[in-house]
Amino acid sequence: MSNQPPHPALLIPGPIEFDDAVLQAMSHYSESHVGAPFVNTFGETLSMLRRLFQTTDPASQPFVISGSGTLGWDQVAANLVEPGDEALVLHTGYFADSFADCFETYGVKATQLKAPIGGRPQLDEVETALREKQYQVLTVTHVDTSTGVLSELKALSELVHRVSPDTLVVVDGVCSVGCEEIKFDDWGLDVVLTASQKAIGCPAGLSILMVSGRAIERFKARRTRPTSYFGSWKNWLPIMQNYEAKKASYFATPSPQLIHALHTALTQILSRPLEQRFADHRAASQKIKKAVAELGLKQLAAKPENQANGMTAVYLPEGVQAPQILPSLIKKGVIFAGGLHKEIATKYIRFGHMGVSVTDPNREDIDRALGALRAGLSEIGYKV
Amino acid sequence: MSNQPPHPALLIPGPIEFDDAVLQAMSHYSESHVGAPFVNTFGETLSMLRRLFQTTDPASQPFVISGSGTLGWDQVAANLVEPGDEALVLHTGYFADSFADCFETYGVKATQLKAPIGGRPQLDEVETALREKQYQVLTVTHVDTSTGVLSELKALSELVHRVSPDTLVVVDGVCSVGCEEIKFDDWGLDVVLTASQKAIGCPAGLSILMVSGRAIERFKARRTRPTSYFGSWKNWLPIMQNYEAKKASYFATPSPQLIHALHTALTQILSRPLEQRFADHRAASQKIKKAVAELGLKQLAAKPENQANGMTAVYLPEGVQAPQILPSLIKKGVIFAGGLHKEIATKYIRFGHMGVSVTDPNREDIDRALGALRAGLSEIGYKV
Repeated sequence: MSNQPPHPALLIPGPIEFDDAVLQAMSHYSESHVGAPFVNTFGETLSMLRRLFQTTDPASQPFVISGSGTLGWDQVAANLVEPGDEALVLHTGYFADSFADCFETYGVKATQLKAPIGGRPQLDEVETALREKQYQVLTVTHVDTSTGVLSELKALSELVHRVSPDTLVVVDGVCSVGCEEIKFDDWGLDVVLTASQKAIGCPAGLSILMVSGRAIERFKARRTRPTSYFGSWKNWLPIMQNYEAKKASYFATPSPQLIHALHTALTQILSRPLEQRFADHRAASQKIKKAVAELGLKQLAAKPENQANGMTAVYLPEGVQAPQILPSLIKKGVIFAGGLHKEIATKYIRFGHMGVSVTDPNREDIDRALGALRAGLSEIGYKV
Repeated sequence: MSNQPPHPALLIPGPIEFDDAVLQAMSHYSESHVGAPFVNTFGETLSMLRRLFQTTDPASQPFVISGSGTLGWDQVAANLVEPGDEALVLHTGYFADSFADCFETYGVKATQLKAPIGGRPQLDEVETALREKQYQVLTVTHVDTSTGVLSELKALSELVHRVSPDTLVVVDGVCSVGCEEIKFDDWGLDVVLTASQKAIGCPAGLSILMVSGRAIERFKARRTRPTSYFGSWKNWLPIMQNYEAKKASYFATPSPQLIHALHTALTQILSRPLEQRFADHRAASQKIKKAVAELGLKQLAAKPENQANGMTAVYLPEGVQAPQILPSLIKKGVIFAGGLHKEIATKYIRFGHMGVSVTDPNREDIDRALGALRAGLSEIGYKV
């Protein structure tokens, strides 16, 4: 069915399996980064991102820059806060530690609000923290790739706007954009940052952001210059605006092939109602979580409302270590990921279920994965 | 001959035309960034870069990070100098201004040593500057993409080591690596930074650096933390060392597809003696520069020793503007670039001649380009 050579199904929480047409777009012949055909493609890509993020406010600003999801943290820390500013970082796993480290790199004080493994900070705890100090930004990991914990954005953003209206709401959506609902305008978000290789379904290599008009104004009102050069919106803002207006413009050379692939992926996503896409992810996730429970395995995210729809992180049976079972699953044609949360890394595995593996009815990735997991556990003597 | 759809030959000074096999590698099926097959590919790629840069010193360290050539400047400014340090920036066009701006972003004082358009700073001027102040780094643009000026690295590096031995020699090789000879060890270079999309012949999206053991030691002896997060060698050095040792490791997700394409491009380059590759570029360049002179056009780089071998920047005839002639050349199947040097941008065009367009005997890009240029000038009434 696929034109791709036979290979194990990649079911880690990113990179994910890619559609044939997206991979084909990666081979696009060489184009000038300032020539009309490519400028047109890039401009359309930026406009499509507005639809993916459900923003119609013309003041919202998309950015697509060669890099990875991590570069989105640098963009926030270098453009939206200044040395000496304060950031409140909600902690749901590995990625909050890293985002906090990024802020500290730029001279910004990061205060983490931690939840137990598998949980998320509660709204009353966030409210208390916001009342204690004036934070310039609050960050939340929408889906923490290390734990599979889903955060609740709508109520959180309402809380921030009510209790601390000058605090910008910054969402790390690396593992959520494209598989979890995000209503950028309606929910009053200021930044959602993501990467190409997860639920958007385009190979890795792009840092993708949507930024609110309010955040752009905050950026323009800085007292000091941005503290990054490659990640500076002073350099990129006019470039992004020009590309979207179909005008050639240069700061640093973008990757035409990756932009073509992103254009193809977004065209596919937007060819169906977004609501249907999110429903597909929820349905696949429910099926997987039910099967995992039937195997007697527990998720890191114990409460259903904390569980992501694009990935599942499960504890292995007592005594079984991830490095023991993952290789046998590869032999059965399925690649899962090991643990990433330092304290329990070898005790759990992560199963990504995003993009074509759940939206393309011709693919059998999910059933194959569940079968492999069942057989793999059985082989090592675990009763399934 | 090529599997690519018909398209105008891209003869700008980067991105360049790519080989079919390289573009095919861009479509590689999805792999885990920490799985053995990809780790192996990335490790081989890093080792091949050592050969491309002609370094056998095990203390040298290659870096390949998602980004663009510009990110290499950030890496230098964030890792090798500290706020308050001094950088001497040799100016041969647009890119020195930008590199200086990058240093200033990181709190480093950049002093530019400027040459007239088409020239390069002379060694005695560099010596005088080095004796006036202690610079932590000196930067030189090996080939300035905005002017086609070639700098002389060997004598320059010898001078720096003699006059100011603690000054690191940093080369912007974005438009030279892969088409101009660079002997990293023999010439005593400390950093050569480049990008994938020029003479290396791999699509844009990668920042590529070779760093000397001496520079790595300087980095390790920093008094302050690196001033970038995404570009921090504190984050990337262990990752690069692990990949090259074929060990899985994670800081930020690399782009497997781009790394596969780079692996393919480097395998092709290294399948022949490098000396032959440089000779091919010199021969094509001589042919082009002779043809251009026969058309009565003058190069920005007037002196032969200042002229790059991978590109040619030529003044248009008096009264002819770049935006007037470039579209007619596209109609004839060839894409050249307009000027980039602010003061004279519309008065000249840039012709890139790197990679498969000069090394693949089955391609007729160069003859087609010269024919188009001749016809284009003739059409607007210029006697050729």
